Amino acid sequence: MMPSRESVSDKILSQKVQRGLKWEQIAEVLEQSPVWTAAALSGQCYLSPEDCAKISQLFELTEEECKVLQTYPYRGSLGETVPTDPFVYRFFEIMQVYGIAMKEVTQEEFGDGIMSAIDFTIDIDRVPDPKGDRVKITYNGKFLPYRKF
Amino acid sequence: MMPSRESVSDKILSQKVQRGLKWEQIAEVLEQSPVWTAAALSGQCYLSPEDCAKISQLFELTEEECKVLQTYPYRGSLGETVPTDPFVYRFFEIMQVYGIAMKEVTQEEFGDGIMSAIDFTIDIDRVPDPKGDRVKITYNGKFLPYRKF
Amino acid sequence: MMPSRESVSDKILSQKVQRGLKWEQIAEVLEQSPVWTAAALSGQCYLSPEDCAKISQLFELTEEECKVLQTYPYRGSLGETVPTDPFVYRFFEIMQVYGIAMKEVTQEEFGDGIMSAIDFTIDIDRVPDPKGDRVKITYNGKFLPYRKF
Amino acid sequence: MMPSRESVSDKILSQKVQRGLKWEQIAEVLEQSPVWTAAALSGQCYLSPEDCAKISQLFELTEEECKVLQTYPYRGSLGETVPTDPFVYRFFEIMQVYGIAMKEVTQEEFGDGIMSAIDFTIDIDRVPDPKGDRVKITYNGKFLPYRKF
Amino acid sequence: MMPSRESVSDKILSQKVQRGLKWEQIAEVLEQSPVWTAAALSGQCYLSPEDCAKISQLFELTEEECKVLQTYPYRGSLGETVPTDPFVYRFFEIMQVYGIAMKEVTQEEFGDGIMSAIDFTIDIDRVPDPKGDRVKITYNGKFLPYRKF
Amino acid sequence: MMPSRESVSDKILSQKVQRGLKWEQIAEVLEQSPVWTAAALSGQCYLSPEDCAKISQLFELTEEECKVLQTYPYRGSLGETVPTDPFVYRFFEIMQVYGIAMKEVTQEEFGDGIMSAIDFTIDIDRVPDPKGDRVKITYNGKFLPYRKF
Amino acid sequence: MMPSRESVSDKILSQKVQRGLKWEQIAEVLEQSPVWTAAALSGQCYLSPEDCAKISQLFELTEEECKVLQTYPYRGSLGETVPTDPFVYRFFEIMQVYGIAMKEVTQEEFGDGIMSAIDFTIDIDRVPDPKGDRVKITYNGKFLPYRKF
Amino acid sequence: MMPSRESVSDKILSQKVQRGLKWEQIAEVLEQSPVWTAAALSGQCYLSPEDCAKISQLFELTEEECKVLQTYPYRGSLGETVPTDPFVYRFFEIMQVYGIAMKEVTQEEFGDGIMSAIDFTIDIDRVPDPKGDRVKITYNGKFLPYRKF
Amino acid sequence: MMPSRESVSDKILSQKVQRGLKWEQIAEVLEQSPVWTAAALSGQCYLSPEDCAKISQLFELTEEECKVLQTYPYRGSLGETVPTDPFVYRFFEIMQVYGIAMKEVTQEEFGDGIMSAIDFTIDIDRVPDPKGDRVKITYNGKFLPYRKF
Amino acid sequence: MMPSRESVSDKILSQKVQRGLKWEQIAEVLEQSPVWTAAALSGQCYLSPEDCAKISQLFELTEEECKVLQTYPYRGSLGETVPTDPFVYRFFEIMQVYGIAMKEVTQEEFGDGIMSAIDFTIDIDRVPDPKGDRVKITYNGKFLPYRKF
Repeated sequence: MMPSRESVSDKILSQKVQRGLKWEQIAEVLEQSPVWTAAALSGQCYLSPEDCAKISQLFELTEEECKVLQTYPYRGSLGETVPTDPFVYRFFEIMQVYGIAMKEVTQEEFGDGIMSAIDFTIDIDRVPDPKGDRVKITYNGKFLPYRKF
Repeated sequence: MMPSRESVSDKILSQKVQRGLKWEQIAEVLEQSPVWTAAALSGQCYLSPEDCAKISQLFELTEEECKVLQTYPYRGSLGETVPTDPFVYRFFEIMQVYGIAMKEVTQEEFGDGIMSAIDFTIDIDRVPDPKGDRVKITYNGKFLPYRKF
Repeated sequence: MMPSRESVSDKILSQKVQRGLKWEQIAEVLEQSPVWTAAALSGQCYLSPEDCAKISQLFELTEEECKVLQTYPYRGSLGETVPTDPFVYRFFEIMQVYGIAMKEVTQEEFGDGIMSAIDFTIDIDRVPDPKGDRVKITYNGKFLPYRKF
Repeated sequence: MMPSRESVSDKILSQKVQRGLKWEQIAEVLEQSPVWTAAALSGQCYLSPEDCAKISQLFELTEEECKVLQTYPYRGSLGETVPTDPFVYRFFEIMQVYGIAMKEVTQEEFGDGIMSAIDFTIDIDRVPDPKGDRVKITYNGKFLPYRKF
Repeated sequence: MMPSRESVSDKILSQKVQRGLKWEQIAEVLEQSPVWTAAALSGQCYLSPEDCAKISQLFELTEEECKVLQTYPYRGSLGETVPTDPFVYRFFEIMQVYGIAMKEVTQEEFGDGIMSAIDFTIDIDRVPDPKGDRVKITYNGKFLPYRKF
Repeated sequence: MMPSRESVSDKILSQKVQRGLKWEQIAEVLEQSPVWTAAALSGQCYLSPEDCAKISQLFELTEEECKVLQTYPYRGSLGETVPTDPFVYRFFEIMQVYGIAMKEVTQEEFGDGIMSAIDFTIDIDRVPDPKGDRVKITYNGKFLPYRKF
Repeated sequence: MMPSRESVSDKILSQKVQRGLKWEQIAEVLEQSPVWTAAALSGQCYLSPEDCAKISQLFELTEEECKVLQTYPYRGSLGETVPTDPFVYRFFEIMQVYGIAMKEVTQEEFGDGIMSAIDFTIDIDRVPDPKGDRVKITYNGKFLPYRKF
Repeated sequence: MMPSRESVSDKILSQKVQRGLKWEQIAEVLEQSPVWTAAALSGQCYLSPEDCAKISQLFELTEEECKVLQTYPYRGSLGETVPTDPFVYRFFEIMQVYGIAMKEVTQEEFGDGIMSAIDFTIDIDRVPDPKGDRVKITYNGKFLPYRKF
Repeated sequence: MMPSRESVSDKILSQKVQRGLKWEQIAEVLEQSPVWTAAALSGQCYLSPEDCAKISQLFELTEEECKVLQTYPYRGSLGETVPTDPFVYRFFEIMQVYGIAMKEVTQEEFGDGIMSAIDFTIDIDRVPDPKGDRVKITYNGKFLPYRKF
Repeated sequence: MMPSRESVSDKILSQKVQRGLKWEQIAEVLEQSPVWTAAALSGQCYLSPEDCAKISQLFELTEEECKVLQTYPYRGSLGETVPTDPFVYRFFEIMQVYGIAMKEVTQEEFGDGIMSAIDFTIDIDRVPDPKGDRVKITYNGKFLPYRKF
């Protein structure tokens, strides 16, 4: 039997902790951003054969484990509709409080359509601030206009 | 009886449509960003007496209506746990697919804590792109470290 | 006060019943498909000024009502997570029984990505069949490949 | 003890990945469509003795495993009411946005009734398009008129 | 504005109470069964022009009200997932306790498929019994075999 | 440790598949109906010592396994509020569409009360029909009048 | 139009407050217990013509309002699955903590079956206690043995 | 590792079935009521060292298992919001139908407050009745008046 | 008809805004704490005739409105299981993250039992702090030991 | 493979029971409060290398287990939206009954903002009282004013 995707992720995350690796270091190996890297190795993204080649030695992945990472994952990592973890919950809160305002402002600028969450990237930066450093998260998604039919 | 907050928002939104005003124009009057402006006038933020003074003429607000806008709103604008509107839903999707990865990367950089959604700002920009312009949304929140006790 | 989008839809649907109009006839006026027409006039799509011009006489819409139809709607028409109506429920059932299989087959053909529900069309046809005519529903959506980042 | 249906599906899916088989290839062995094949071998459809005979060698199924595939499955593959995976979610979104419109248009054409999801087929095709190829999904279900009683 | 389907049902139900009519009497006028009659006049079924002609005098329906009854209703009368009323809840209980057993027994007899709830009738009878009369409810639905594709 | 009720049911169901037994055949051994038999052996009903004596040889049950079947089960077999399987779902649909109508008609006939789901039987029959055989399901429950107090 | 059941209940409850009537006093008029009386006049029970005759003068009910009380109500008074009111919630808590224990003890005494909630009464008494008086609630329901079939 | 509370309960319940013990007999050993005994040994109550001493021989409990029973349990035994088992569900039904009436009658007698579910006892009795014996369940809880502050 | 409790609360809240009253000022009139006062006048607590006498002039309450405030309210003010407002949500978050820890620590100190939420008070204080003032919320509830029975 | 966080917590909790340790004693070792200690060792908080050094001997933790405690946990310990345990539920009840009142009073004092649940501490004290000792729980969180943007 092939290992499950979950067990391959568990192995990778286990090795990451054991060796004290950071997502940023692994991201350099994969030549992707840290967020994509963390998502992908936790089981949320498809890895190409080239991606697997880059990390297989680092995490001592077998050929079978690499094959599993090259299947298309069923995305959605929380197992909860409303996340209980405060860090993740804040994204839910932002959506509740500002979601419609973001929709209004974007559609006034772009017309009827949405920001793609597929042709989409995330960047996370630290913004130094004397009153306490700030987290800057940048979403960048292609605008997709609704097609009339 | 004082008008309800909802009825004041309805009046403002109604006038906005009638006069063809854009959030950006109203934001200039308020000297705030368009997202905050859209959220505030839809009933999601507190308006100070100064904010009210700036917009009362524009929307023909009575003194009573201004008073209502100066109460502290019960936030949360959707009335749904999982939003059905595709624009708003994509924020839910991003949270499901990348929420834990964003948590992992941020906490490796900052230590144990969260990005505040209160000491927090949102910017929306258009990024021209020959393959189709892109929506750039920037969250900027103070990092709040967990306090041990 | 401007009328609400819901009240404009109610007026249109009311007139449609009263005059015995069919979606197909209204669709010809709008020069769009019947499904898009039914969705749009029930409040699920944005109508352009040109769209409004085409139907304003038919439904005796005022200028204000036309303006309302030109705002960007909050989509999602059911008010239920699992629809109780048997016709609509069957789409939920198909998703439950065949959703993952459709994902598997599409991604093997196209790679990692999704079928857009925005750059997307629906056609409905009657397929005559001696054992009982059949309903043919065709979804046609742009394939959106996941962007690595 | 007989193996569970789930364990037989796991074995089949495991072998599929290991040998790099595609649903289309397996579908040819079964002489069915790829979607039905993927659904059936993931545990969503009943397989006849003839179906089992065709694939037992390919997947090294034992006689007991074949017997399990010939029981009537409890259908519903998601384990979630609102699917978190973006590919599968889009079917939920289409139902929310266009479900009632599809009902309206179909019933105006056919009268009071539904499209069967039992006497029903699905086809998936690639539609080449210079702006990006498109996914075409065709549902074809018998129209079932409501019986008055 | 046309009246809503709900208001027409309310008018009918109101008159039914006022005049002390029973569903059985109304069913005779409609030449249908009492269950279908009660469902239809409560807003759960489509009424043909002939059906409307039969009852319009009885309930003093206007032409407009008749037109509304001839639209295709959005079915589902409870507004609750798990019904709180003990009479209706018992159907939920029977489904929970015996649903899978009914599936098993029916599919062993008929093969893979379902009992239609569309090409379907319900009869309710009183069965005299010295220990207390019994309610007999008979479902009769066409067996629909799954189509392989 | 005694085996769990679930493991005894699994053993019985496993042997049923292995030996190609039908519920009808097992029902004859138990001298009960097929539906009750399927429900009972799937873990939904209490079995008396006499019931166990009748089937213990057939399924090679140990004395301990028989004791477990003689405990009072926690009923409810689905693990879902709204069942995803189409066969079982149709009972939910019937309850949604016709539940209140069945209540109305029964209470007009019997007075205020309910059909018992405890002092209750189910029969399933095949009704030959040239347009496709039909499934007939008969519920027969004692009428329980509400007690005033 | 006949008044709705809810509006008749509202009228009764309104008069009860206005005149400072207690459920116990009204119960004496109805010659029923206070709990049944409170439930019935809040819309949870059917009232017979005799019941209506007894209270119509007290609450100045019209003939139409009496007719409405003689229809069979859709029971279930909370509008919440888990009640938020602390008094009512405690019944939920008791069910969660002691529900299975009550089932176990009752079924060991009576065999497989349930306590009826239809052929059922409730009494509430005050038990004086020097450490603080106690509420005594007595449920008394007919034991209904499961029928094998 | 210490055993989990669940595994200790499973051991006790297993031995209870194996030896044919009744809750009433075990309750005599514990010198508590059968309901409390059944709840406690199913994992819903704290057992004191004295309680453990009384039953440790009966169920061959080790010292470690006794220690586990002396921890404070996380109460709530159902794992479901709305219980599917008919016996347990009836408590939910009683709460839905009569919960507010019980609140009204109790508060009219005692003033604003609740019946405690902590300083609380349950008794179950059999009431012989020629028409079928009855189950009598008595709740007895201290009245807790709301404290103004 | 008597006014509803909700409409009396609305009148009070409306006057509070109109006159610029603070909860603290109203609390002084009622000689209670600001939290209890805010809860009570929003419809969450019973008011005694003495309470009503104190505030009736302030809010120009009629005798009827006072009577309504003297009925026992159905508590629970949110209308949401998981509150969307960030201020209120934090209480949910604290319960999720620290609820079990608070239970563990309290029960180790007090034995098996709970903190009463009925014989219970809340105080809110401002704690000056050079890094930003702090909110101090103090719960004070009677410890209620579980009664064995 | 590294142990899971859950298994490390289980080991710690197991040893705590086995050795009869109290949270207060462990808290002294960690030089933190009992509530934080109980939360942290149950898996709800991050432990620093120094924290781990302090407790590793006490609980015989391996180096690997210490590393696991130094990862950032996914917080939220209940696995239920509405907690069934009466101790924990009371926090939900307090939020439902007094949540909005606490918001109103705090915001009138501090302006628009929230009490942080991150820069936040909890203290639990016993308040002796002749009528029964009381539990005093003190929340102390930094006030976070909303940032306008």
